Amino acid sequence: MNSSTDSNVLVRPTTVIAVPRLARRLGIDFFIASETFQTTGSFKFRAALNLVTCIDHPEVITASSGNFGQALAYACKIVGKACTVVMPATSVKMKVQAVREYGAEVELIDVRLQSREERVREIARERPSAYVASAYDDPLVIEGNSTLGIELANLDSPFSQVVVPIGGGGLAAGIIQGLSKSGTRVGIVGAEPLIANDASQSLRLGRIVRNPKEPETIADGARTISLGQHNWDILRHGLAGIIEVPEEKIIEAVRLLFELANLKAEPTGALSLAALLTKPEMFRGEYVCCVVSGGNVDPDLYAKIVGSNPH
Amino acid sequence: MNSSTDSNVLVRPTTVIAVPRLARRLGIDFFIASETFQTTGSFKFRAALNLVTCIDHPEVITASSGNFGQALAYACKIVGKACTVVMPATSVKMKVQAVREYGAEVELIDVRLQSREERVREIARERPSAYVASAYDDPLVIEGNSTLGIELANLDSPFSQVVVPIGGGGLAAGIIQGLSKSGTRVGIVGAEPLIANDASQSLRLGRIVRNPKEPETIADGARTISLGQHNWDILRHGLAGIIEVPEEKIIEAVRLLFELANLKAEPTGALSLAALLTKPEMFRGEYVCCVVSGGNVDPDLYAKIVGSNPH
Repeated sequence: MNSSTDSNVLVRPTTVIAVPRLARRLGIDFFIASETFQTTGSFKFRAALNLVTCIDHPEVITASSGNFGQALAYACKIVGKACTVVMPATSVKMKVQAVREYGAEVELIDVRLQSREERVREIARERPSAYVASAYDDPLVIEGNSTLGIELANLDSPFSQVVVPIGGGGLAAGIIQGLSKSGTRVGIVGAEPLIANDASQSLRLGRIVRNPKEPETIADGARTISLGQHNWDILRHGLAGIIEVPEEKIIEAVRLLFELANLKAEPTGALSLAALLTKPEMFRGEYVCCVVSGGNVDPDLYAKIVGSNPH
Repeated sequence: MNSSTDSNVLVRPTTVIAVPRLARRLGIDFFIASETFQTTGSFKFRAALNLVTCIDHPEVITASSGNFGQALAYACKIVGKACTVVMPATSVKMKVQAVREYGAEVELIDVRLQSREERVREIARERPSAYVASAYDDPLVIEGNSTLGIELANLDSPFSQVVVPIGGGGLAAGIIQGLSKSGTRVGIVGAEPLIANDASQSLRLGRIVRNPKEPETIADGARTISLGQHNWDILRHGLAGIIEVPEEKIIEAVRLLFELANLKAEPTGALSLAALLTKPEMFRGEYVCCVVSGGNVDPDLYAKIVGSNPH
């Protein structure tokens, strides 16, 4: 285990995938920038690695049960920091296993008795040397994600629009920052589940709007209560708009990526293609970069989505 | 549909994927060279494009019902040649649809009445200006596939072994040829289904051995009766060996690629990883390039494989 070490521990370049069959099907000229082969399977590793290399704290705590937990666990392992990830006791076993495999301590809690955020604050009080990491609302997270924007700018591809999934807003803010640093002026469009449309409402009302509770969208990376403040400060000026995507378009996008692009995407990652399916007329005549943010999905859910097709 | 034209119609570079979780799980240091994002979803496009650009015939006929049919259809469309693909009437509807979508004429025949090869010969007699294309037994096919060997040589990665799926032997022969042209000396190991082990038997006996009938392996790209003569001439000297892979290891490999590498592979494409699972001791201390040859798989079969996991 030595020769491939470098490529395994650092941020990998995004995977550019040409999708002529999908493009013909939609009547939209586009390509995919996929983060599904990023270290730990999603863009979150960009944020996590930047965060852990920028702080002096010997320990990091987070409440993420999804991709950020895995990314942070592995980033901490690489730089030799302790990592604790607080997860609901009801989490999918595979996700818990992945976080542990990446080297973090997992604390399973009964969320009916105490919220994950409360428990994180409690641990933070017990361990004052620990850094409490948000999956999106942190300048270090946004800076880490901005590396994807810089990469896109350097592709030397004449795209005019970027479509990007929105949950807490960390990735979209990072891409805006990265493209802006690189002097690339293209339209940046968010893709958000319609039943979790707090970001869209926020843009309309000019202030952060909160979902009344965690929305039950199939795009589990977008089950956030609201945008983070740091993200909002960037998104409110940097986004050209947000497309609100019905759940059935997310499912269709996962299936189309499987069938016509050989790409395994998680529902949250497929939000961008779902946005193209929802408002194709917005992209006619453009050349679009569609960001697929991650590929980690429960096998049974995935089997249900791709196996149910009518062929 | 203009700005992405170049990248859509030509051979795309292979996709290099780092797989630290898989490597830890197997205790083997390796990476993947994936042809699943190649034009038409498999390495076959390399062969097809080379073939159609090297011949003067205005029309091409083939009997392939799988990846070569799709690749040839699209390659012919690009260079403006007519293309006829003879397929069994029982073919999966999706594959027929794909070949048609790529622009070829599909002729469905009842294979109980006439074999596909007979029908191809019949059409060839009717249309003397047509070129009859074999999916593997043709120097132009091997030369096309050799571009992958040249790419691997140019990766500047210190791998010591390449593992490659074997059906008719077109890809393995091409990789041997490409690496050899590039002056790269590494071990090249074939991966073949145990129940379709004609290539393995051929190596042992020093002559082409034929399967008594089309073997019913899940790796449908390896359901060939025997190696082609042109392939054999290269493989007999160029291969370090062939690993015979049980069916259950092929299924496990498809599932592991899904779970730990976010890679959608077809069973034939997963043969190389299945070989690592079958004989891991052969690869300890090596740095291995594992070629995943394609990603086109029936959705229901795939759902069955990845959804049946015990998590």
